[in-house]
Amino acid sequence: MEPFRIHILGCGSALPTPRHCASSQVVEIRGKMFMIDCGEGTQVQLRHSHISFTKIRAVFISHLHGDHCFGLIGMISTFGMLGRINDLHVYAPQELESILDAQLKLFCPSLDYKVIFHAVDTAQQAVIYEDRSLTVESLPLDHRVPCCGFLFHEKETARHILRDMIDCYEIPISQINNIKLGADWVTDDGEVIPNERLTSPGTPGRSYAYCSDTRYLPELVERIRQVDLLYHESTYTDDLADRAKLYYHSTARQAATIAKQAQVGKLLLGHYSARYECEDVILQEAKSVFPNSYLSDEGMVVDV
Amino acid sequence: MEPFRIHILGCGSALPTPRHCASSQVVEIRGKMFMIDCGEGTQVQLRHSHISFTKIRAVFISHLHGDHCFGLIGMISTFGMLGRINDLHVYAPQELESILDAQLKLFCPSLDYKVIFHAVDTAQQAVIYEDRSLTVESLPLDHRVPCCGFLFHEKETARHILRDMIDCYEIPISQINNIKLGADWVTDDGEVIPNERLTSPGTPGRSYAYCSDTRYLPELVERIRQVDLLYHESTYTDDLADRAKLYYHSTARQAATIAKQAQVGKLLLGHYSARYECEDVILQEAKSVFPNSYLSDEGMVVDV
Repeated sequence: MEPFRIHILGCGSALPTPRHCASSQVVEIRGKMFMIDCGEGTQVQLRHSHISFTKIRAVFISHLHGDHCFGLIGMISTFGMLGRINDLHVYAPQELESILDAQLKLFCPSLDYKVIFHAVDTAQQAVIYEDRSLTVESLPLDHRVPCCGFLFHEKETARHILRDMIDCYEIPISQINNIKLGADWVTDDGEVIPNERLTSPGTPGRSYAYCSDTRYLPELVERIRQVDLLYHESTYTDDLADRAKLYYHSTARQAATIAKQAQVGKLLLGHYSARYECEDVILQEAKSVFPNSYLSDEGMVVDV
Repeated sequence: MEPFRIHILGCGSALPTPRHCASSQVVEIRGKMFMIDCGEGTQVQLRHSHISFTKIRAVFISHLHGDHCFGLIGMISTFGMLGRINDLHVYAPQELESILDAQLKLFCPSLDYKVIFHAVDTAQQAVIYEDRSLTVESLPLDHRVPCCGFLFHEKETARHILRDMIDCYEIPISQINNIKLGADWVTDDGEVIPNERLTSPGTPGRSYAYCSDTRYLPELVERIRQVDLLYHESTYTDDLADRAKLYYHSTARQAATIAKQAQVGKLLLGHYSARYECEDVILQEAKSVFPNSYLSDEGMVVDV
């Protein structure tokens, strides 16, 4: 299977710490690279990751808090200095557009590539990006400012040819693609061979849900049911549930509860409050509810 | 003497490298802290430096290239989260004001302190800041966009009292301050004792010039004559003098030539191109012209 993996560039929260960087991830899926969030310092983390700067096709910004977007203009500017020519698509809440425009005019007046802005309605679950390999949907979250997560859904591959049947019916190579896409075959004497006899089902698409920042949001469960990998913010441990509610964040227990109820494959924790010198307490709390929980960390690469 | 020192937070140039951060320094003078330039990641470097976030009174931005100012909004935002209440003054080219305003409205709508913008005319040498202890002057530089350096000039201290003379004339304590400030003393029988007999001269003020980014600019020599410490950009070595000219930067030899002709006390090099994996070549080149040259590096603290 072609890789579908998440590169963690930053998993800290709003206050900078020596241990974690501001939020950013790169989703690698069938050779394509998409960035989610771009806090200050992301371009340096990207450099550490050895992901090619030119490969990032689009950046998805969950919300307009600085720790999720202050690195964008610096990265765009550096892409320009490095000679990028491919368009860069930015998906973000509408209010970012005018500031980004003004920044581009002042700081990057002679970019050799286009930055194309797409406003995202964070209140709607909707497909905001689609290509041959995947869709990306917005996932409304509950934060202090308009905010959404992102659901990456790999498309099911075409059906797999059953070599024996192709040989048996002497189907020419020119027809193979049609049959992979579901066509039946009609023999010379008019017999219709249904596609199901010629192929086996395609490989189902894998899925990744990114949910940060948000209060505990039970509605999320249906929206991310059975994703293979869930990143859910876990800013606090449950003893600070009141604080989590006040600041529209989640605790590790709440993140794990969502993961459990949605029957996801694996839970990745992050967006840790600066108060934790070690996140083991966050991990243990999550594991007590949903055993297949993991801490994200800078430089980590996670298979979906 | 009270400290007058420079904390190097970043001394790299436009492209991020694993070795150097974008430009930023903190000038500490008689217990006051002033920042010069604020590239992306400065707030993290500030945290590493253990300088109190609340102590920065003002930020001076030399020019509007990202590696000198992209860290400003993140730092302002973090200051807010940390509960700052003191005004923060920002001195920068005029074009920054509208973007900074828009960023503050969108990202920091409820700061508990004021950000006060002061437009700097980079084409003029002028006093742009003054308090009891120091002045800061703009120093016009020659870069691709309007750009100025900054000259920090500590004021001469008040004159020093000669204890023996005070005792001899039985001058009351209430008069000491006047005498330090230059007053003569009149004895009971009307004799005027000139101030020069009662005091010795005050300690002369120390001075620091920050010059980045700039082409080789001989006019600078008169403007920074005999400063105690000069930071002058040295993006390249002299074999790349053509490139330096093309991109409006300086070579180490040029920086050292300015230092030598201006008879400065000490030269601090920085703003190294990402192409140098080790800056020893830059240092050796500068030393061959001006022996009292030093490489700046992140975390370094230099006495003026």
